[in-house]
Parts: sequence; C-alpha cells; structure tokens
Amino acid sequence: MESEAIEIRGHIIDSLILPRVLDEIVEAGADYRMARFEVGKSHDDPSFARIEITAERDVLDRLLGRLADLGAELPDAGDARLVAADRDGVFPDGFYSTTNLPTQVRVGGEWIWVDNPEMDCGIAVSDARARTVPMIEIRTGDAVVCGYEGVKVHPLERPRAGSGQTFSFMSSEVSSEKPQGLMVRRIAETMRSVKDEGKKILWVLGPAVVHTGSADAFCALIRAGWVDVVFAGNAIATHDSEAAIFGTSLGVSLDQGIPTEHGHEHHIRAINALRRAGSFEEAVATGLLTNGVMYHLVTHGVDYVLGGSVRDDGPMPGVITDVLETQREMRKRVPGLGMAVMVSTMLHSIATGNILPASVPIVCVDINPAAVTKLVDRGSIQSVGMVTDVGLFLRQLADSLEAS
Amino acid sequence: MESEAIEIRGHIIDSLILPRVLDEIVEAGADYRMARFEVGKSHDDPSFARIEITAERDVLDRLLGRLADLGAELPDAGDARLVAADRDGVFPDGFYSTTNLPTQVRVGGEWIWVDNPEMDCGIAVSDARARTVPMIEIRTGDAVVCGYEGVKVHPLERPRAGSGQTFSFMSSEVSSEKPQGLMVRRIAETMRSVKDEGKKILWVLGPAVVHTGSADAFCALIRAGWVDVVFAGNAIATHDSEAAIFGTSLGVSLDQGIPTEHGHEHHIRAINALRRAGSFEEAVATGLLTNGVMYHLVTHGVDYVLGGSVRDDGPMPGVITDVLETQREMRKRVPGLGMAVMVSTMLHSIATGNILPASVPIVCVDINPAAVTKLVDRGSIQSVGMVTDVGLFLRQLADSLEAS
Amino acid sequence: MESEAIEIRGHIIDSLILPRVLDEIVEAGADYRMARFEVGKSHDDPSFARIEITAERDVLDRLLGRLADLGAELPDAGDARLVAADRDGVFPDGFYSTTNLPTQVRVGGEWIWVDNPEMDCGIAVSDARARTVPMIEIRTGDAVVCGYEGVKVHPLERPRAGSGQTFSFMSSEVSSEKPQGLMVRRIAETMRSVKDEGKKILWVLGPAVVHTGSADAFCALIRAGWVDVVFAGNAIATHDSEAAIFGTSLGVSLDQGIPTEHGHEHHIRAINALRRAGSFEEAVATGLLTNGVMYHLVTHGVDYVLGGSVRDDGPMPGVITDVLETQREMRKRVPGLGMAVMVSTMLHSIATGNILPASVPIVCVDINPAAVTKLVDRGSIQSVGMVTDVGLFLRQLADSLEAS
Amino acid sequence: MESEAIEIRGHIIDSLILPRVLDEIVEAGADYRMARFEVGKSHDDPSFARIEITAERDVLDRLLGRLADLGAELPDAGDARLVAADRDGVFPDGFYSTTNLPTQVRVGGEWIWVDNPEMDCGIAVSDARARTVPMIEIRTGDAVVCGYEGVKVHPLERPRAGSGQTFSFMSSEVSSEKPQGLMVRRIAETMRSVKDEGKKILWVLGPAVVHTGSADAFCALIRAGWVDVVFAGNAIATHDSEAAIFGTSLGVSLDQGIPTEHGHEHHIRAINALRRAGSFEEAVATGLLTNGVMYHLVTHGVDYVLGGSVRDDGPMPGVITDVLETQREMRKRVPGLGMAVMVSTMLHSIATGNILPASVPIVCVDINPAAVTKLVDRGSIQSVGMVTDVGLFLRQLADSLEAS
Repeated sequence: MESEAIEIRGHIIDSLILPRVLDEIVEAGADYRMARFEVGKSHDDPSFARIEITAERDVLDRLLGRLADLGAELPDAGDARLVAADRDGVFPDGFYSTTNLPTQVRVGGEWIWVDNPEMDCGIAVSDARARTVPMIEIRTGDAVVCGYEGVKVHPLERPRAGSGQTFSFMSSEVSSEKPQGLMVRRIAETMRSVKDEGKKILWVLGPAVVHTGSADAFCALIRAGWVDVVFAGNAIATHDSEAAIFGTSLGVSLDQGIPTEHGHEHHIRAINALRRAGSFEEAVATGLLTNGVMYHLVTHGVDYVLGGSVRDDGPMPGVITDVLETQREMRKRVPGLGMAVMVSTMLHSIATGNILPASVPIVCVDINPAAVTKLVDRGSIQSVGMVTDVGLFLRQLADSLEAS
Repeated sequence: MESEAIEIRGHIIDSLILPRVLDEIVEAGADYRMARFEVGKSHDDPSFARIEITAERDVLDRLLGRLADLGAELPDAGDARLVAADRDGVFPDGFYSTTNLPTQVRVGGEWIWVDNPEMDCGIAVSDARARTVPMIEIRTGDAVVCGYEGVKVHPLERPRAGSGQTFSFMSSEVSSEKPQGLMVRRIAETMRSVKDEGKKILWVLGPAVVHTGSADAFCALIRAGWVDVVFAGNAIATHDSEAAIFGTSLGVSLDQGIPTEHGHEHHIRAINALRRAGSFEEAVATGLLTNGVMYHLVTHGVDYVLGGSVRDDGPMPGVITDVLETQREMRKRVPGLGMAVMVSTMLHSIATGNILPASVPIVCVDINPAAVTKLVDRGSIQSVGMVTDVGLFLRQLADSLEAS
Repeated sequence: MESEAIEIRGHIIDSLILPRVLDEIVEAGADYRMARFEVGKSHDDPSFARIEITAERDVLDRLLGRLADLGAELPDAGDARLVAADRDGVFPDGFYSTTNLPTQVRVGGEWIWVDNPEMDCGIAVSDARARTVPMIEIRTGDAVVCGYEGVKVHPLERPRAGSGQTFSFMSSEVSSEKPQGLMVRRIAETMRSVKDEGKKILWVLGPAVVHTGSADAFCALIRAGWVDVVFAGNAIATHDSEAAIFGTSLGVSLDQGIPTEHGHEHHIRAINALRRAGSFEEAVATGLLTNGVMYHLVTHGVDYVLGGSVRDDGPMPGVITDVLETQREMRKRVPGLGMAVMVSTMLHSIATGNILPASVPIVCVDINPAAVTKLVDRGSIQSVGMVTDVGLFLRQLADSLEAS
Repeated sequence: MESEAIEIRGHIIDSLILPRVLDEIVEAGADYRMARFEVGKSHDDPSFARIEITAERDVLDRLLGRLADLGAELPDAGDARLVAADRDGVFPDGFYSTTNLPTQVRVGGEWIWVDNPEMDCGIAVSDARARTVPMIEIRTGDAVVCGYEGVKVHPLERPRAGSGQTFSFMSSEVSSEKPQGLMVRRIAETMRSVKDEGKKILWVLGPAVVHTGSADAFCALIRAGWVDVVFAGNAIATHDSEAAIFGTSLGVSLDQGIPTEHGHEHHIRAINALRRAGSFEEAVATGLLTNGVMYHLVTHGVDYVLGGSVRDDGPMPGVITDVLETQREMRKRVPGLGMAVMVSTMLHSIATGNILPASVPIVCVDINPAAVTKLVDRGSIQSVGMVTDVGLFLRQLADSLEAS
C-alpha cells in the first residue's frame, strides 16, 4: 500500500468536483484522509482541499490518472513521460488518451497547453509544443505522452444562473415538453453573441431540412450571415438539388405535399445532372441550380465539407468518399468556431462531436429524443438538446434573427 | 357446402373494395365465381360485380358479415334479427358489433339509417328508428340487432386527388420528414371549410400545450373562434392554472425556462386555489384567473369536458371523476362536429376516436410518432397524422388562420 | 436582511447534499458563510457543516423550507404550525406540500414520523400522530401543517457500490444499449430479497403483456408466487379474456400471428361475456375462463385493482369507474410493499408512482424510452428503468426465477 | 391527345395491380377505357385487362413508363433505346432508372433478363446481356438503356395465406405489440428453409449487439452455421474487441453492468492494440483475441465486410475507409444470398437495402420503431420488421435454432 496526496482548488463543492473526486477514490477501493480543507467563506471564494490517498500501487496509478482528468493536481508531478511511436498509425502502449477539455502537459518542468483539444486522441510533443494527434495520423518517431503523470485537465465550471450564460437553463433534461419558443430565442441570443465575439457558427445538417420544406428558412439564415461553415453528407446535397431541379424531395412535391410521377427517380436524375455539371460551383454558374441550400452555400461563399457514407447514391460531385479524408477536412475547420448547431443528422453530428473541443457549445435539434440524448451526452457542459420539429424550428429561428 | 351471391357497386376497383372483398373470400377458404362484372368505362363510371361464394354454412355466415362491413350487399337479405336484451348493461349473445361507418339496418322491409355511428356498440331499434348504444347503456328489453343479416355498411370512398379533398395528400405514411409548413396550411384550409359549412371544431388537448409555452397560440385560436368544443383532462386544467397563477408549468418558469423555487409545489397549490374558488367560472369571476386556456374557455363560452384519470392530483373543480359519466358527456357533443384536432394526448384522443363517426376527419398532432400512428390507425380514411412540435405547430396554425 | 443558521450532517459531500444546499442558497440570491465545517477523515465518517445564511426575510423563509427538504436542520426550529381546514377537500392556504421521502414533523416539542409518505399531499395531525392526506380527503376541522417550519425530510442516501445494492449499477441513464440479460438477473435477485424480507411485490400491467403473447410467462410468475398485488386497467382484463375465450389479442391470433375473421369484435364480445357472467370470479367458477392472467389472479388469490379510464370499452365487471375510488383502493395496498414492477403502461404506472413512498424501489419496463424516462424521473433514487421488449423480458425473468 | 393501349394479366385484382394502374392513370389526369376485361372465374385463374389510355403525348409517355414499372405491357413496345455514355461516371440524359424488381429489356426483338436487380442504377447492355450498373461505375461508351420503352418489370406477387409463406403474417404494420416469441420462431423457420435451399444468410450488425451483452448469442449462431456473410462497421469491431480484451463495452462492464475505471479509454486502446496486431486474423493468431464476434468470424471463416464511416475512431485494421470501395465489396456478396437479417444499425442496413434485389427477404430488428419502419418501407414485399430488444431477440433466436 502506498500513499499520494492530491490537491484540488476552485469552486470544487458547488461545481461537484470534490464529490466526484471522493467518489472516484471510494469506487476504486482506496482509503483517503482529508489532510486540509478550506471552504470559501462566501460563494465567490474558491475552496481548497488536500487529500491523501492510500491504495495498492497499480490501483493508485490508475486512480491518479482519473483524478487528473477531474482537475486534481498531483502535487509532486514530474514531467509527462514521452515515448516515441514505433510505427505509423499506432500509439505506443500506455499512451495518454485525451478528453476534449483544456489540457496541459509538463515538459521540461513547464506546463504547456495542448493545441486543439479533441477526445480519444494522443498528445504529441515537439519543439516545446503539444498537440492532439488522431491515431491514424501518428508517425514513427513522434514523441507521444504516456501515462497520466504530468498531464493536467481543466474541467469547465458549471455555468451559474444569472451569469449571462444563456444556455444554463436548458442544460438539463432532454424533453419535448419545454417552452420551445423561449429556447429558440435563447439560441438566437447565443448566436448573436458568438458573432459579436468574431467567432464562426458551424451547422451540421441532415436531409430532413429539405424533406420538411424548410430549406427556405435555412437559406434565409445563410443570406443574413448566420452560417459560416457547413458539414453535411451526400443526402442533403442530393435532395436539395432534387428540390431545386424538380421541386420535389424524395419524390414528394414540396408545393403540394403529394408524390409526383416518377418522383422516386428524381434524386438519381439530380445526381446525374450534377455529376454531368462537374461541381456545384459549375452547376450554379451554368444555371442548373438557381435556388436551395447548395446554391446559397456557393453564392454566399460558405465553407462546406460534404462527407460520403456507404449508403450514398451517386455520389454528388465534391463529396469526399474517404472517411479519413473527410475527418481531416472537418478538423481543419474547428479553429475559430464559437458554436455548432446540429440539425437532424446522427452520423455527421456524432462525427463532429468527436472532434470539437468541449469549449464550443453545441445545440442539437432533432425530433427524435434518442438522437438528441445521444449527442448531448457526448457533448460539453454547455450543450443543449432540443426535441422539436426541424422545419418549424428553422423558421422560428430565422424569425428570431430577423433573417427572413 | 352452400352458396350465396353478393353484389358490390361503385368505384370498387380503385377504392380497393373489390380486391378486399376477394381477399376476404380467399382468406376464409371459400370459393368464388364472378357471375357478372362490369367495369366503368371511364373513371367516373361506377363498376359492378356479382360474386357467387361457396363454403360451409358457418364459414359462409361469418364471411357474409365481414363482406357486409366492406359494403357488399347480400341480394336476398331479410330483415335484421332483433333480440331483446335480458339484463341491463349486457347485449344478447350474437349482437351485431358496430363499425364507425354509416350503417343501415333493414326493419320491416325498410332500410333505415342508424343514428350516431360509433364503433364497438350495439344497435337498438325502436319506433322505426335505429341508434348505436354502448354496452353499458343497454337496458333490459331493448331490441338489439343480432347477426349480420339485414345490416349494410357504407364504406367511405377514398378521396380523389384534385377533388378538393385538402387532406388527401397527407393520408399516407406518418412521418416527421414531411413539408410541415404545407401541412399546417392545409389544416387551416380544412378548418375554414368546416366552419363555412356551419360545423363545429373539436379540440382534444394534453398538457404539453402548456409545458411547451404554446397556450398563447391556442388562446389566440379561441379568441378568433376556431375552438368550439374542448375535451381534456385534469392535467391541462392544472398546469394552465399553475401558469396563470405562478407563471410556471411543472414548476418551470415559462418566461425563463428554469425551474423556480418550490416550483414543484405550484401545481398542487393551483389545484387547492381552484378548489377553494369552487369552479373555473368562479375563479374567472373573482380574478384568480386572468389569462390562459381555462380563462379563455370560460370567457369565450367554449363548451368543454374535463375527464378525470387515475393519475390525477386534486382533482380540479369540474373534473368528472367517473369515466362512464365522462364518456356520456363526450358523446353528447358529437353531433354537429365537422372536425377533430387532437394535440399531445393519447388518453383523451383514443377516448375521442372511440366515439367519433368515421365521417368526422381527425387531425392528430404529436411529437411522438408512436402516438400519431396509433391514433391514425384507428381513425377514419380522412385522418391525418402529423409528427411535429406541438408548440411550434399551434403557433404556425394561428399564423395561418390570422388568429394571432 | 436577516440571517439564520442551518446544520447538515452525514455523507453530505459524496451524497451531493452539501453541493445541492449551497446551490439552492446561491440560486436564491442569498449570501452564506461556512461557520463550521468538518469533513469525515475517512469515507465512512460523517461530515458536518453549519452554514449561516443571509437574505431578505421572505427569501430566507422560502429558502429554509427548500433546504429542509434537502435534509438541513434549522437549529432553532419550533413546532410545526397547524391550521384547521375550513372546508372539505381544500387545504388551508400555505399548507405544507409533501415529498415522498421519510418525513418528521415537530408537534409539542417532539419530532414524530409522518405515516405513509406520499408526494403532493398535506400532513394532518391528530392525537400525536401525523399522516399524509390527499387533498380530496381532507375534512373541515382537520389540523393541517402549514409552512416549512417544524418539518424535517430525510433524503435517501445514494447507494454505494459494493454495498449489496443490486440496483445501484443500473440507476443511471435509461437506454436500450445495456446488458439486458444482466439486468434481468439483478431484478430477479432483488425480487428474491424482497420476498425474503417478507414484503410484497406489486405489478402494474398494461395490455402489451397480452398483445406480445407473454401472458404465459406472467402466469408462471403468479403460479410461482412472485405476484402479490396487481394494479391494471380495463384493457388488460379485456384482451386477456379475449385471448382466453377466442385465442386472439386485438383480433390477432396469438398462435398464428395473423388477424382472424371478425377478430376486431372479439374484445367487445369478451367484455359482453364477462359482464353476463357478472364477475371474473364467477367466470372462473363457471368455466368461461380457464386460463390467462385474470384466471390466475383469481385462482391464486392475488389481490388486484382494476381502474377504469375514459377510453375503456365496456367496462369489464369489477373495473372501478370512479378514479378517486380507484386511488383509494390503490393506497390501501401500499403498506407492506417491498417493490413495484411496472410493465408497459404509462397511465397506471404514473398513478402508482404518485402514491408510492420513495423507499419502495421501482422497476419500470417499457419498449418506449420516453415512457421509461418519464417514470424513472418521478421515482425514488432506487428506481430502475429498462428499455426492452416486454414479452422477452417476462420470459427471461420467469427463467431467472425458475418460475417456468 | 393521343392514345395507347396497355395490357395487364395475372392476379391483378387481389394483388392490387389493377387498382394501382387505374390510380396512376387517373392521377396523371389521363382518360381511360376498359377495352377488354376478363376476371378469373376462380381465385387461381389469372385475370386480364386491356386498357386504352388517352392523354397528351408527354403525359402519356411518362405514364407508360410508370405503368411498365407496375408490370403493364405496352403491347406494341419496340426495343429498348440504347445510348452510349459520353463520360465516365455519368449516365446519358433520360437513362432508365432501375427498381430492385426482376426486370427484362428488349434487345434485338428479344426480352432478356437484367442481371443483379438493384434500385437506382442504370442498365448497360453488351453482348446480348443486360446488367445493372451503379452510376459511379459507368464508363464512356457503355450502352445504357434510356426511356421506358422496351423495359418490363415483374412485380413480386403478394404472398397468399397458407401458401407456405412463413412471413406473410408479419408483413403488415410495424409494432412492438406483437407476439414476439411467435415471430422469432417464424424467422427461425425461414432461416432453416433458406439454408435448405443452399442459399446464404447475410447479417448486417450494429454495435448494440455488443452493448446489450448479446454477442454470446450471436457467436452461438456463427458456431452453428447460421451466419454466412456479415456487413458491419468500425463500431462493432471496436466494441467487440474492447469486450474481448477488457470485458467492457463503451467502458461498461458486461459482467457487472457498471462503468469501469478509465473504461471510456478502453475502446481506443482496443483499436490501438488491433492496429498494432495489423489485422483481426493476426490478432486471433497471436492470442490477443480469444472470444467475441470478430474472433468467431475469423475462426469460422465467415466472409465479412467492415465499412468505415466519418464518425469512426481509429479505424480498426481491415475497415474500408472509401465508401465506394465498401459498396463494391458489398455488391460482390449479393449473389447467392437467400435472406438478410439487419440488427440495430441504420447506416449499414440502408446501404444493404440499397443494393439487394427485392427477391431477397429482409428481417429488420431494432428497438427503435422509426428505424424499423424506415428500413421495411424501402424493402421488398417480403420484408419483416420487428421492434424488439436486440439482445433478448438474439438469445431467443439462438434457442429456437438450438444453436446455444
């Protein structure tokens, strides 16, 4: 049995950090002693705890790593241990697996920040810089952090009521039985403040935006400048083009709501027409597309990534068919993001959630509560799920932002 | 083995009546011969078929009953067989169990229409009149139709495209991936035509109307005259009163979207306050209620039935605690209805669906596709399900009807 | 501005009681000072905190009530304030609204336990005894506790891992993506220990038990003694009788899985047959029912309550049509319960959840995650939700309990 | 206005082909005249109809194409029109877009069958053979069928009750309220008959198979020879390896049901370990994997395709990262399939549904009704959806097949 002391400080009681730390210790079967404990006298004062933990060495090591993830400092931590990768695309055994929280590693006695927090990656160190690296991108010889020592994770503090955190009210339970009109207004406010800070808004879109006849509302948001980056798949590009060329989505007339003759062929004919054009840019230039989401992305210079999937027809021109290449293109767009709005797509939303740092708030909107729950559970403390109709949501949001 | 001949006429091919008839015959293991078959030469002409069916007597009898339900005429049908009920609340054995379709019975050689078509009832005949009677209401000595002979059911014909049936486009699959804005406009059109015909619009409401913060939109519909009758439960009366008195629903502030202090007690305090007032009418008179759904029902003279359920707190004054009494009060409001809109309640919607004739179109709106499917499956051929956000739906509907 | 001191003790850090208390204070806009704070040195030691709170008098009063609900002691609490009800069925203004947690009230300087904890009730005191009273049952002159003073609520402590709490592992997220086989075995273990303690198991049943063809498995559980009390509605009694008499459920053959001729009439004919028999007991005696759930309830002397609802056909004999009367009958069965298993019914499960004390663990099983979430959220800390197929669940449970 | 005559023959009334044909004509706004109509005298006799249709030329042309899809013969049809593709990966304008039904094209006066029916493809003709070609695979100069003339589609006839079609009973509504035990037995029977015919069974698997702790049941099916081909993604390979190496799935212990320490890292460590091994085959050879789904696939020589998606971590070795390449590998496995069972995966199930001919029956099992409905709607007339718990389903199926 060995002992180690950890220290935690900050709003550790009402941010639930202390209870979680004690919980981990107890769950691990370790003993602890509160060596020192100072509670903030008023609610703005930080608190401080020094806890001595006793357990078998291996239990202790795993436990310390877990506590570091919760923000505990190991008082006598040394430098992070670096091990050179011995082959491409494979981490050394015992690599430190990242969270999506702000993280520091100690290198040469200095705590340096890790660039681009992203979960389930490794940390590579070179030239006194640390960066997250996806497994597939690691190269033989890269110095990779191993073990939990010399790594410090900074949990996001829970937003306080009244602290101007417009999202705090929503961050609880995912339910359709909420005042949706109010939520839309709060999301609009958050979008305004993100843009005021000069940051970008990312939209992740599924084809229901087109099927529900709400592409118009989304186009209004593009025109009014609320869309900086779009991640989507082949399906929305397809049905949006189908709508632009044939006036249908999945063969259903968007004006009449009824299936049209041969409508089930429209999407495949739209793909063929776009492949013939060669690109969405060319299709706009030649007048094949004169409205819709893709037309607006092109004409308003919105940066977009179309990622392919195995269920795709076609695919449309510009769709990236290699999923690793799609991930690379998505990662390039993360810096500068201030917010992500995910609408009616599980696949691309999860993919995006995987690469976003916890500091980027997520709004996830879907009529399927299971989809929303799944996404919000993965997300940051600032994530908000909204179970609602996508079409009516986009319309109300456009109204709230006076975009329409 | 015996044989009987049946005749069917009308748009029996494209209304799928003929295929269904043949289907039933084959499924029953009977043989058939097309004795005569005349197809309408153009699509407005009715068709005619005379089919001879051969099977064992008991199979034949059951089959004929089933075919009568599909609209087939038994050419040599005699009068309906009447049997006197031998005790209160119990039908004679072999009673004819009704559909919700227009039905005739033959009495004294005359085909007379049955009043108030309602499914799962019996038919009582007296003074040359026939009416549906729920089992619980039958009285000893009532003459009840037994067997299938002398009963003729008139299936509703499937609406034709372009025939002014605004609903036809929607009557297919229940899905959230539909152009919802368009559907809202169609529902608004249907409501207009129902009122133009001088008929009433029934609303069946669940408490999500209040939780989602959309009571305002519904109140606008009341003020503009689009609400004639309301069926609801204790819950909406409770949370609407909670909202009116405390500004919360289930303790969540409708302005701020956050739980309020002691908010979980608000609904029970609202019930207590209303019970003290004695009635909703009195609560409006004394100024306890000055807004909300119940306030508007009272001040605009909307006819409402509040039916209790076993999960109720309180209950609120005016809530009928005996479920049979509630059914009686609901049945009284059926004549004159031109449409029913069911919003976010399984319990009361199913109860309403049980008593409505098939000729009253139903619009069922819920964010849960299972709820919509269940209700639309029970409903008439003119029923429409819409999987969407209730709050945003009501708001858009009010806009479409220029009620807000 | 005034100040009051509160004290909390126990496992207040890792049971999250302290953070919640501080949270409430901060949310209320009050100031606080940690007057004394002693953390348990090891994880079995209780901790202690004395907190001085400062706020406006009215804020302070509301806050103290809320903190009392969390288990805080107001050091200088006086007796509970008793006010006589001034009319039947209405509480005095300012009545204390109960939780479902163990609760004490101070009467004549003594802390006495409140009988039958039940949420959303009042507390009536007479003859040095305190009991919860539903609003509808209060009578003029009853002495009712008002305000929060002199009331102490005892939160259930969070179960610890390894403490023999077989349920602790499951009490987190509701999801279908869990090792269901394992959950079934844990539920079986819990049922065994409940019976070992001499307590009763309550089942709350919806008709899906019959529709899914799993009545057999449930009957095996009855025969093996795992069913003490059943709460259900008209629907299961109807479809179970339909299955017993006609071999169908909702007209679908349970042997063949296909709709049967005239099958849609079977349920109403089954109701008529039972009404003619007069009671389920009589139907068993005369041989009308020779198998199924109702047959087993009758022949094994299981205590059951059938509560009516507005959507009922019939109703079946024995179904209580007044919902308040149903609640009374259900409440009578609460004492002695050790566990409640709720299967595929929202209506009766919520009604049951409303009247159960938090100390009775609930297992809620439904294939609809929304239903499970709704029920588990209302339930005690020991509640478990399981999103799974009801039929396959009952079969596996019967296997686990060697009932089949 | 011009006129054309079509002929349809077979069980055109009770297979609903005639009503659908008339429907299409009426919907298109065309007129028709029944030139000849012969109804089969008994239910085994085919019927025959010759219908003259009158409309504007362009309406008529589109309509005829649609009717051909329904099985109508254009009596005076000439050869199919062949147009050479003018660039790679793009069909000529006006290409015939395929269904997944058995199809013939007329070439040189002969009706030849199209190889590999697959929906949303083109038909290329060369050397008196016709085959479906996905858009991406078409090459400059390929002769592609354009227009609807000279193409004949053969609808599958609706299975008759009692005709030995074990699936017919289930092919109706998707619902969890069905006798699931019965459905499992029917699926087992179908699997037996598929194997008896010497055909292969394809499984399409999502990771819930592992999360629900039911990998054991699936492995038993592999061992007993019920699994010939598997289509899956990175996720199941990941969590299955995680389970094999760490005993967890998504970090949750499959034995205890509780999250394990650092469990959230297990999946990424499992991927790293497998990438280090280089392949699943090597991981089995070296003893890294000694149980689980992947181990069984390797050791029992089951043919599998792992298709990557944008949300993947890693990916695992052997996962195809280009989605078009994945589609190619999947298509190669279609010939010889007698049945497809899709379990808990939308992405790969839709991808598989896209490439299967309608003649391969599909069983789709998911606890989410929306997923099942979506898949069954796309599928053949023989498709069956089952809303149930995947884990309990696999266990019961293994029992029914005596695999466990």
